[in-house]
Amino acid sequence: MDCVFCSIAAGDIPSAKVYEDEHVLAFKDINPQAPVHIVFIPKKHVMSSLDDYDYALHADVIARIFAAIASVARDLGLTSGYRIINNCGKDAGQTVRHLHFHLLAGADMGEKLL
Amino acid sequence: MDCVFCSIAAGDIPSAKVYEDEHVLAFKDINPQAPVHIVFIPKKHVMSSLDDYDYALHADVIARIFAAIASVARDLGLTSGYRIINNCGKDAGQTVRHLHFHLLAGADMGEKLL
Repeated sequence: MDCVFCSIAAGDIPSAKVYEDEHVLAFKDINPQAPVHIVFIPKKHVMSSLDDYDYALHADVIARIFAAIASVARDLGLTSGYRIINNCGKDAGQTVRHLHFHLLAGADMGEKLL
Repeated sequence: MDCVFCSIAAGDIPSAKVYEDEHVLAFKDINPQAPVHIVFIPKKHVMSSLDDYDYALHADVIARIFAAIASVARDLGLTSGYRIINNCGKDAGQTVRHLHFHLLAGADMGEKLL
């Protein structure tokens, strides 16, 4: 399968790993858009995007990704706040078709979302 | 409790409702930042932000919010894509301390996240 995040999860492409458990891997974004910019992925390619989300199949994957995000935010001491972004499809600029969440922090992002 | 999203969930403050189930309510953002801008909240004030996230307590709430988001995206036919944003704390511009997710669509948002 030609998926860069599957290759990162398999260790075939190196990454700056921040967090790993049985289900979730997190690594520094290679093109950071904030002082802290971490990407969270399910290790298994269970969804290309939220378009594929099925509660019966994927509830636990989503819950574990958010557990990982909260854990990393605590470990990094992001007490001033952070933003989590998931992009789905073309209009959102999704470049890798393997579900992933961005954690952005270390800058005052304000109330503007776009 | 002085929480605007709790008041919306209780029906004490009107909202333009888009989706509702036992656990989740979604409504149009009162200050939309994109042609489609919907806010998803747990009806119960279970978390002020992801800072409070506890997998054992909150896994199902998160999974149900994402089920609601995916369902609304399908119902609205957002086949060109959409962005989901969660803000946690001051630096992210979180204004209401009741966990919520923004769904943004209807514009080409590009790959820039901030």
